Amino acid sequence: MSIVVGYVPTPAGEAAVRAAIAEAGLRDEELLVVNSAREGSVVETTVAAEEDLDRVLAQATEAGVRAQVVRGTHRDDFTDEILDLAEKHDASLIVIGLRRRSTVGKFIMGSVAQRILLQADHPVLAVKPPR
Amino acid sequence: MSIVVGYVPTPAGEAAVRAAIAEAGLRDEELLVVNSAREGSVVETTVAAEEDLDRVLAQATEAGVRAQVVRGTHRDDFTDEILDLAEKHDASLIVIGLRRRSTVGKFIMGSVAQRILLQADHPVLAVKPPR
Repeated sequence: MSIVVGYVPTPAGEAAVRAAIAEAGLRDEELLVVNSAREGSVVETTVAAEEDLDRVLAQATEAGVRAQVVRGTHRDDFTDEILDLAEKHDASLIVIGLRRRSTVGKFIMGSVAQRILLQADHPVLAVKPPR
Repeated sequence: MSIVVGYVPTPAGEAAVRAAIAEAGLRDEELLVVNSAREGSVVETTVAAEEDLDRVLAQATEAGVRAQVVRGTHRDDFTDEILDLAEKHDASLIVIGLRRRSTVGKFIMGSVAQRILLQADHPVLAVKPPR
């Protein structure tokens, strides 16, 4: 079994990765980091993501966790990719990051997060960045 | 630290309790089972809940997990009670059960689940009952 985490280089994405590394360590499972480049994304974005992913893998190694990056390309979001990967690897956990919301927007959840929470057959751990 | 789980005697609630017991065992933390009787609920409901809670505590004991039931009464739902308890005990995790949805309703999340996910400062583990 393994832990699947959706990674984007945002505070919520970093929080998800930190939590996923901790969970993988706790359960002694492999970490699969899903990073989907959007089709048509500019070169600069890809390069930045590459550095971020190297940093994520270094964090995992430092914590004694085996981790690998799973890349893919989806048109809209990476919900399907995360769900497919969780299914394929019989994931014990999917980890996602939720953004903190302003008072005005606090009842609105991102569509990716909502789709993963509702559609996943696997347990989903939702974390937020520190205040 | 402790694990907080919201319990209602439904398939989603049972799934949440099972997951919460497993997490408490994995982390060697105490389990706090939140069960709020709605104001004005009939006697029959309370009696049923009492038996269910005994069963939940027995499940925890069997798994070697220290658990206690935290009771309260809220008018609408037990979101605030769960969030307050998580805050008070610096919970490492809040566990909630999500209902499986029909195809028609699959994008609708219950308001309690949504409020906990969005408002909690603590990581939230969302699980579903088995198919």
